[in-house]
Order: sequence, then structure tokens, then C-alpha cells
Amino acid sequence: MPEPMQDEPAVVILRLGHRPGRDERMTTHVGLTARALGADRIILESAAEGRRETIEDITDRFGGPFDVEVTDSPLGRLRSWEGSIVHLTMYGQPVQRVEDEIRASHRKEPLLVVVGAEKVSFEVYDRADWNVGVTNQPHSEIAALSVFLDRLFDGRELDREWEDADKRVVPKETGKRVEEAE
Amino acid sequence: MPEPMQDEPAVVILRLGHRPGRDERMTTHVGLTARALGADRIILESAAEGRRETIEDITDRFGGPFDVEVTDSPLGRLRSWEGSIVHLTMYGQPVQRVEDEIRASHRKEPLLVVVGAEKVSFEVYDRADWNVGVTNQPHSEIAALSVFLDRLFDGRELDREWEDADKRVVPKETGKRVEEAE
Repeated sequence: MPEPMQDEPAVVILRLGHRPGRDERMTTHVGLTARALGADRIILESAAEGRRETIEDITDRFGGPFDVEVTDSPLGRLRSWEGSIVHLTMYGQPVQRVEDEIRASHRKEPLLVVVGAEKVSFEVYDRADWNVGVTNQPHSEIAALSVFLDRLFDGRELDREWEDADKRVVPKETGKRVEEAE
Repeated sequence: MPEPMQDEPAVVILRLGHRPGRDERMTTHVGLTARALGADRIILESAAEGRRETIEDITDRFGGPFDVEVTDSPLGRLRSWEGSIVHLTMYGQPVQRVEDEIRASHRKEPLLVVVGAEKVSFEVYDRADWNVGVTNQPHSEIAALSVFLDRLFDGRELDREWEDADKRVVPKETGKRVEEAE
């Protein structure tokens, strides 16, 4: 039986540097990926507030728990975080070298995972306990976040159960099947 | 020593359903993720041709091999593919249940991985050897692709070496370091 992931210390995603217009879909996808792959909460900057509804709508329909929080002081949230901090960046240490250490830390305390859009201030590199690269190649913050979470949870997030869902997708070899959740 | 991944049967990504304007950054990120996480090539629809340059520019600077191909008949490419086909979809079978089978198949023959943007025609579900869900939750095709590739290659893609790169990022605990490649 899958164990409820909510019994573990929290994993919270902090999305930094949303540029209105340019980043709308990226930020939505960061939020939906965070939810689908086992995080408990995402913190958005005020500039990304419009994305809250889309993410919450998916949680209403497909289940939770998953929270969206909006702050006008994202760096303040970083400074006051009680737990450890990972910053995902292509300049960081290879995820495959540091993941064991991070997993061990997460068994003991909450983890904040910082995912930047545009240029991230040096303070973030400096406050992070681990600057982590999912490869040292330029690609996508959504890709980095998803590989990181899959490794952090060791695949357990894929068997997670959802609460208070209206709809449930039933896996199929071919085609689509969506049921009303009980 | 990391083995050159190019000695293995090819992994080719087919990006279906690019909507001009709306999908520009998503398609770029699909392409960069494909490159960074070990695929050999991406096939784009004509509508996405504008994305080719951005992806090729990263390959020029950070290395390859990685190819971008543009076709005006993406379904034709699907129909004539010689090898096996995976279609990533939230309606598919859980990746954790089918990944061993897919990995075994890829040891023997090339693999086409179909990543859709908008609604995908039933023919794709039907032609795929595996319709695969990275969770059965709505999230991001970039996230699905990245988790799929990381599992397909069992993490080997993270130690891949790059050829003909101008620049190389040197992993750092804090800050950024980029060197000219030798």
C-alpha cells in the first residue's frame, strides 16, 4: 500500500522571478508539476498571482492536498525558511552526487526547493544548502524540478493517492478513461 | 567512464501539435530537455520551425550530437517509423509499470517518443506500442518527458559527455563557473 506522503516533512516549491506575459504557462506548468510529483505547496510571487486559479482548479477536480500561496516577499520567505533549501540551477552540483544527502535531510526536516525563471540573485545561491544541477546544460526549470522530485521521493510520488478528487483517470493501454471519483 | 550514448539505438522525440504563439517556449523547452536528457533528435512540425534556431544555438555552444528536424507530415513520420513507439499521455499506463519493458525494447531497436501539445488524434494512441503516463494527473509534457528519459536511461544521461562544445559549465557549490571547452 502506498503510504500517505503527507506524513513526511513538507516539500515546498518557491517559484522565483515570474515575468508577466512571458512566463504564464511556464509558471502554471511548474505548479502543476509540483502538485503531480509530490510537493505539498507552491509559493508564487505576486506577479504570478493569476496562475493560482488554474492550479487550484486542477486540485479541486483531481484531488489534493496541494496548496498555492502568493507572497509579495519571496526572498523574505527564503530568509525565514525553517528547514533546508535546494536551489535548482544548471551551475550547481550534479543531482546524482548530492541526492542521497538531500534525501537524508528531508527525512528530518522540511525542504524548500527554489525554481527560478529569470536571473536569480546571488543571495539565493548563498542561502541554499545545495545548489543542484539536473545536468549542467541549459534546458527547462520544469524538467529540472520533475527529475529532482522523482529522485527525491524515489518514485513513491507516482503511487500517491489523492484526496477529495471529483475525477480520476483510469490508466489504459489505448484511449482515455475518466471516472467520477467515489 | 561514461559510455557514449550514441552507441545505443536512437531515441527520437516527435513533438506534435505546436500552436504558434501559445506554444513557443514550451516547444523550445521540450527540445532543450530532449537534448539535455539524452535523446538524439527532435522532430518538429512546420508550425514550430521558428524554434529550431534556438535549440541548434544551444547545441552549437554547449555541444552535441543533437539534431533538429522539421517535417510537414508529423503523422507520416509516425506511420513510417521503424522501431517502437511510446506516446506520453496522462491517460496511459503508469511509467513505473512499463518502463522495464520499454528499456528492454530500446536495447534492441530505436524508440520514438511522442509528446503532444494540444489534443492528440486517436491514431497516435493506436499506433503507439505504449501509451505511458508519468502519473495520471494533468501537469506538463516537459515534466513527463524528463522523468521518462531519466528512467529510460537509468540516470546514465546525467553523466553523458558532449562533443564539439564551445562552453562547459563547471559544477559549483555556490555561484557560477563557465569555461571555454578544450
